Amino acid sequence: MREFELIDCLTRGLPTHKSVVIGPGDDCAVLDLGLGDRLVLFKTDAVVEGVHFTPETEPERVGHKALARCLSDIAAMAGHPAQALVTLALPPNYEPARVERIYQGMLALARRYEVTIVGGETTTNPERILISIAMLGTVGRGKAVLRSGAEPGDAIFVTGDLGGSRAGKHLDFEPRIVEAQWLTKHFGVHAMMDLSDGLAGDLPHILKSSRTGAELLTTAIPISREARLAAKDNPSKTALQAALTDGEDFELLFTVASRDAVPLLDRWRSHFPGLRLSCIGKITANQGITLRDKEGVRPLTANGYVHFK
Amino acid sequence: MREFELIDCLTRGLPTHKSVVIGPGDDCAVLDLGLGDRLVLFKTDAVVEGVHFTPETEPERVGHKALARCLSDIAAMAGHPAQALVTLALPPNYEPARVERIYQGMLALARRYEVTIVGGETTTNPERILISIAMLGTVGRGKAVLRSGAEPGDAIFVTGDLGGSRAGKHLDFEPRIVEAQWLTKHFGVHAMMDLSDGLAGDLPHILKSSRTGAELLTTAIPISREARLAAKDNPSKTALQAALTDGEDFELLFTVASRDAVPLLDRWRSHFPGLRLSCIGKITANQGITLRDKEGVRPLTANGYVHFK
Repeated sequence: MREFELIDCLTRGLPTHKSVVIGPGDDCAVLDLGLGDRLVLFKTDAVVEGVHFTPETEPERVGHKALARCLSDIAAMAGHPAQALVTLALPPNYEPARVERIYQGMLALARRYEVTIVGGETTTNPERILISIAMLGTVGRGKAVLRSGAEPGDAIFVTGDLGGSRAGKHLDFEPRIVEAQWLTKHFGVHAMMDLSDGLAGDLPHILKSSRTGAELLTTAIPISREARLAAKDNPSKTALQAALTDGEDFELLFTVASRDAVPLLDRWRSHFPGLRLSCIGKITANQGITLRDKEGVRPLTANGYVHFK
Repeated sequence: MREFELIDCLTRGLPTHKSVVIGPGDDCAVLDLGLGDRLVLFKTDAVVEGVHFTPETEPERVGHKALARCLSDIAAMAGHPAQALVTLALPPNYEPARVERIYQGMLALARRYEVTIVGGETTTNPERILISIAMLGTVGRGKAVLRSGAEPGDAIFVTGDLGGSRAGKHLDFEPRIVEAQWLTKHFGVHAMMDLSDGLAGDLPHILKSSRTGAELLTTAIPISREARLAAKDNPSKTALQAALTDGEDFELLFTVASRDAVPLLDRWRSHFPGLRLSCIGKITANQGITLRDKEGVRPLTANGYVHFK
């Protein structure tokens, strides 16, 4: 059973409460705690040694990644991060200096986004370090961007370059907090999420929530330098496949009305000259994802593999 | 380095934020998010297979315990629990039926206290199940009971019976949410926490935060039946030692002004006839913990072991 299926199964039929604006199934839970014009975002995310980092990873980068993943989910709702609790599950023989360096990496990022670490706990996980972070944030009432708002005809955008994150970006990426806030301040963003499982794995979440499909333009998909280099070493996965299926890009995937596409690209380039923004296709009324290139149109499977002829 | 020392070390000098009423060091973080007369409580707690439960533990009891521990911390602040996120870290070969039963145990308790599970995530922990729960609650402004409010002369109380929790109570205990709310509604509770590391391990947290000491009356300490039975089997640890040092009691430890002690005991007995409340001693201006019995007064060490003559 894959993660989202298990969560889906477990959370189906949960009792709801009037405070819950958005429950399971989006990047964050959205709560109405009675804060006037603001809603509260609530999110947890965990990283595990041997899965999301290795024993050899520089500890500061481990801490950065642990916190940045949570921040990326707050960004995906166009929210403002605020407070965090840090759970450290450590083997009995852990090195205090390593843990302190993990914390330093976390704190450097926390300061940059004015996140306050208000506590946490340590517990024992005998074989490996596990770090779970719980985060609170806020978003203006009616301003949270959900996965469910994409409309047929929308232009689909993605920030940055895709694929090859394992070469290093997955440890050092910058959560797109500033970009998401700017986007929603200046444009009507219909749907948004952050890319953690690869474009081909994540776009279906927006499409399913929005009951739509998508047509992507192969040549418009921004392929990272690392994905191209990896494809040279391993001809069994093309650079395009890497860009579609590699995980942990932590870029923003979002849609806007087609009339906004060109103004958005113009203003983006002058406001964020260092970060590529790509219009990669459009939302369609027909479900499923198709990929268009000079040879025609072909379906893209949900697990990210292109059906080549 | 013990848990609280590590957390203390890591969280020292953290940037603070105006929203933080109480940061690290109490049962929950207390946040002022601008909710008028209410403050927000924020807490995380994790349980780990092989540490807090075994592979043979009935899954429903695992789920109960995971959520109940968080609720016990909300109770310790006299708060009202509200929303939770559940992180399940699972081995790749986990049994979906077992995970679903864990969730059912959690949900049964969540319903009883009107806690809404608003989402969560699953991740991989190859060797064992780890469940981390993040919880939000509320408490009236000025109504959160901290560890730091104990005053010399206060009477010290504890709910229930202490020791021997490992015989089963640690999996089935009822968080003292209702009792804590009743207490703070009817009496001025000066300091409160929940007992997770044993009376002798936890009382020092109140004493350190309040810069006070305590004198306990040996005969007043409520020793559980399980602690007495265990002492029969293992003469190297007396029942009193078990009551002082066994962990995971999850009872409330609190102090009130001495003039409130008798009225409190009277009203408690009529309101909660099924749950013992014991006045176990008094707060002193002198630091440290002493234990008084018919043979005199002797010091109790911070790690829970009594210095016998």
